[in-house]
Amino acid sequence: MKTIDVCLTPELIHLYTLKDRTVVIVDILRATSCMVTAFAHGAHRIVPFANQEECRMMKSRGYITSGERDGKKVEGFDKGNSPFEYMGPEITGKKIAFTTTNGTLAIEKSKLAKEVIIGSFLNLSSILKYILFSQNNILIVCAGWKGKVNLEDTLFAGALVEKLKNHIEPDCDAPLAAQHLYNQAKNNMVEFLKESSHVKRLNRLNIQKDIEFCLTLDQYNVIPRLINNELVC
Amino acid sequence: MKTIDVCLTPELIHLYTLKDRTVVIVDILRATSCMVTAFAHGAHRIVPFANQEECRMMKSRGYITSGERDGKKVEGFDKGNSPFEYMGPEITGKKIAFTTTNGTLAIEKSKLAKEVIIGSFLNLSSILKYILFSQNNILIVCAGWKGKVNLEDTLFAGALVEKLKNHIEPDCDAPLAAQHLYNQAKNNMVEFLKESSHVKRLNRLNIQKDIEFCLTLDQYNVIPRLINNELVC
Repeated sequence: MKTIDVCLTPELIHLYTLKDRTVVIVDILRATSCMVTAFAHGAHRIVPFANQEECRMMKSRGYITSGERDGKKVEGFDKGNSPFEYMGPEITGKKIAFTTTNGTLAIEKSKLAKEVIIGSFLNLSSILKYILFSQNNILIVCAGWKGKVNLEDTLFAGALVEKLKNHIEPDCDAPLAAQHLYNQAKNNMVEFLKESSHVKRLNRLNIQKDIEFCLTLDQYNVIPRLINNELVC
Repeated sequence: MKTIDVCLTPELIHLYTLKDRTVVIVDILRATSCMVTAFAHGAHRIVPFANQEECRMMKSRGYITSGERDGKKVEGFDKGNSPFEYMGPEITGKKIAFTTTNGTLAIEKSKLAKEVIIGSFLNLSSILKYILFSQNNILIVCAGWKGKVNLEDTLFAGALVEKLKNHIEPDCDAPLAAQHLYNQAKNNMVEFLKESSHVKRLNRLNIQKDIEFCLTLDQYNVIPRLINNELVC
């Protein structure tokens, strides 16, 4: 049977074998939710940058510059980190240069994997189907918050482990912990996450609407993949 | 209000400030459970070693040599890693040199803390009382398994967070995750942990009795502390 494991933060990635695995990157609030939304609205490609200044330089090459630091839009960038910014017709056919506090770093650190795909609750069922038919073992890499574990990415990992439990075996305790947490939270994730540090942080930025949207299941059926350091769909 | 945080594995310790904190080290299966048991039976001091050969050399200085690698007693050592080995009269007044796969490494990595104490379910209430009356912020350092997160140490962290919730504020998401897991598990931890990777590993070594004992609350009221690189009580 295939196995599934969960890397709860990119700081632990050195403990996992990447080269034979499909890695699912998740940064629910809000990088991977934005990426999935952008592709669902026709974005041509997204180039992730861990470095903010490298990202900024892509403007002169015709890219939309996007991203945040500490939850706020980077000054001078075209777009921030709200999925609602990636729904307009101006996204269709465009190339986007994207940098965020945690999500793009998680992608950067996962580059040696056999395959990297982008997950969020918005494309959960598509990711599930893709994993089921893949031959590879699976590693979910949670973006976390500045190296620490966060609840919302862990819940997404837990949703995958729970829904795949009859088909894929957990590799260690992290997938079991995530699965238990998801089962506790699944009937009302918004409520479950109210006390979480990142949700509190984002609430101070007044983006409750974003949080609720990012916790909505199956809005889109896209599966962004990393090919030659660019996300395509 | 004081804060409480949880470092889910020693691999993440660089993300935490140690110098103003009381650190509680936990390695439920079985290092800290053994240490607490040994002090409850009159051990004079325990010197933790991350390195197995340094530990072995203490034999010639009159120490009992103790410890395991991968769950099994180190060849040539006096004692292994079962709490039942630390209950006899031969423990009273003795100095013990102790090395384990994860627990002693967690102690080594926490040495810069203001204060280091040793926790287990066996001395849970004593630890709770001690923390309540301490002036310091609290960090629970879970020993985990070879760098990865494990469920049993996370449950202990969650027990502390849950029982202190009216007095100490969680610092981040890891304490909240641990608290949720503990609340799910608390009525039957043995059953909850049956699927955990470490429990499965230990079951292959046929030590169900050890596991059940290590998950028993409040057998002892000792609080081992690290003073000048030695545990005393």
